[in-house]
Amino acid sequence: MIKNTKVNAAILIIGNEILSGRTQDTNTSTIAIWLNSIGVKVNEVRVIADIEHIIIEAVNHLRKTNKYVFTTGGIGPTHDDITAQSISKAFDLQYEINKEAFKILEAYYKPGEFKEGRQKMVFMPKTSKLILNPTSGAPGFSVENVFCLPGVPSILKSMLGGLKNEIVGGEPILSHTISLRTVESEIAKSLAHVQDKNNEVEIGSYPFFQAGKLGVSIVIRSDNKSKIDKCTSEILIFVNEKKIEIVER
Amino acid sequence: MIKNTKVNAAILIIGNEILSGRTQDTNTSTIAIWLNSIGVKVNEVRVIADIEHIIIEAVNHLRKTNKYVFTTGGIGPTHDDITAQSISKAFDLQYEINKEAFKILEAYYKPGEFKEGRQKMVFMPKTSKLILNPTSGAPGFSVENVFCLPGVPSILKSMLGGLKNEIVGGEPILSHTISLRTVESEIAKSLAHVQDKNNEVEIGSYPFFQAGKLGVSIVIRSDNKSKIDKCTSEILIFVNEKKIEIVER
Repeated sequence: MIKNTKVNAAILIIGNEILSGRTQDTNTSTIAIWLNSIGVKVNEVRVIADIEHIIIEAVNHLRKTNKYVFTTGGIGPTHDDITAQSISKAFDLQYEINKEAFKILEAYYKPGEFKEGRQKMVFMPKTSKLILNPTSGAPGFSVENVFCLPGVPSILKSMLGGLKNEIVGGEPILSHTISLRTVESEIAKSLAHVQDKNNEVEIGSYPFFQAGKLGVSIVIRSDNKSKIDKCTSEILIFVNEKKIEIVER
Repeated sequence: MIKNTKVNAAILIIGNEILSGRTQDTNTSTIAIWLNSIGVKVNEVRVIADIEHIIIEAVNHLRKTNKYVFTTGGIGPTHDDITAQSISKAFDLQYEINKEAFKILEAYYKPGEFKEGRQKMVFMPKTSKLILNPTSGAPGFSVENVFCLPGVPSILKSMLGGLKNEIVGGEPILSHTISLRTVESEIAKSLAHVQDKNNEVEIGSYPFFQAGKLGVSIVIRSDNKSKIDKCTSEILIFVNEKKIEIVER
C-alpha cells in the first residue's frame, strides 16, 4: 500500500455508451494520471447507467467514502444528460439556472443562438461552483467535494487544469518501471519478498508482448522517491543474480 | 430503459494499474459487446485495487445484485495476483489446488518447467469450474455466477467463446446509429419527445468531431428490431423537417 492514502478520490463514469461497449472510456486514465501528479490516489472507479436513482445512490456513497469524487458525462443538452439534476437531488439542492453560467454561454454563442436547447446546460444545483471550459463554453460544476465534468475526452482534458486550486493533494505519486525479458513465474517469489520488505511501496507486475517477445514490467509506486530507489535496487539484485535481460529501466 | 433487463451483469476490473491510469482498460468494452450479442446487459462496472477485503466486498455485493459477474485481472503467478484467494474467501470455500488445472498446465509446459512460481495459478476456490484458455494455458474459473478472467486483453478475448454455454442470456441487444451533421441542442427537444413515446428503447445522443466537423450520433438500443425501426422512422421525420444532413444511418 502506498502510505499516502489520505487523499483519495473516486471516479464515476456516467453513461450507457460505456456500459454497452460502444465507447471506450479514456477519461479514467486522464483523470487518474492528473490526480497522481497532484498527490491524489484513485481508490475506485464506477461506470453506471444514465438512470437518476442509480446516479444519486452512487454519488451519495462515493462522496462519503472519498475526499473527492469526479463524475464524467451527462452534462450536455439532451434528454439523456441527467447528471446535474441527479446531483441536485443527491445533495437536496434546488436545480436552477446558474446566472454566471448563463452569462458565459450568452457571451459564447452568437446573438440569438443561445436558445432553449442550450439553456438546459446552465441548470445546475444551487450553490454550484463553476468549472470553466476553455474548449466549448459550457462549464462543469462542483458541489462540495463532487466535481462534474463532461464526457467528451478532449473537453474534459482542457478543463482539468482549471481545477488545480480546488484540489488539495499530498505529495505527487511517483512511479518507476523496470521492464524485463522474462516471465512472471520466474520472478514471482523474489518479487514477493521485495514487496514484503517494502510495505509502503506498491509493486505491480504486468506481462507484456512486444515485437513478438514476452516480457514483464515491474511498476513501483510511492510518494517517496528514496523508497522507490531502495526497492529498485533490491529488484535489480535478483534480476542480476538470475541473469535476466533488462529491456528498460 | 431496454425492456430486457432481467439478464444483467456486472464487470469487476481488479487492478492497481487501471486505477493509476498507467493502463487503459479495454476489457470492459470487449466483455460488454460480447454480452450484448448473447442478450446480457451490463448494469455496472467497477474498477478496484488489488486489496483482498475490497475484492471480497465488491464480489459479494455484485453477485447478489446481478445475474452474472465477470472479474478481470489478478489470476497470474505474482504477489499482486490475489483474485483466486479473495474469491475463495468471498464464497467461504477452501483455496486449493484444482487437479484439472494442474493437469492442463503440466501438459502445457515442457517437462520441468511447471514449477512453484507457475503452480500458484492452479490454486482456486474448491468447486471451481474451469474456463479454458486457448492462448496461454492457465485457465480462468467460475464459482456460481462469478466468472474470473485474466487481465491481459488478448488472452481474455480468446477465452470468452468458451463461456457461451455457461451464460443464458435473453434476446441479443441490438443497436442502430444515426449520425447527423448538427449539434445536440438543435435536436434535444425533438429527440426527448421520441424517447418519451418509446420508453422500452434506449436512445443516447453523443457529440463527435470528425475531419474537423461537429456532429451527433444518435444510438438506439433495444432487443426488439421493430421498436428500433419505429424509433428510427420517428427520428428521421424531425431530421428531414429540420433539413439536417444525415452523415450515416
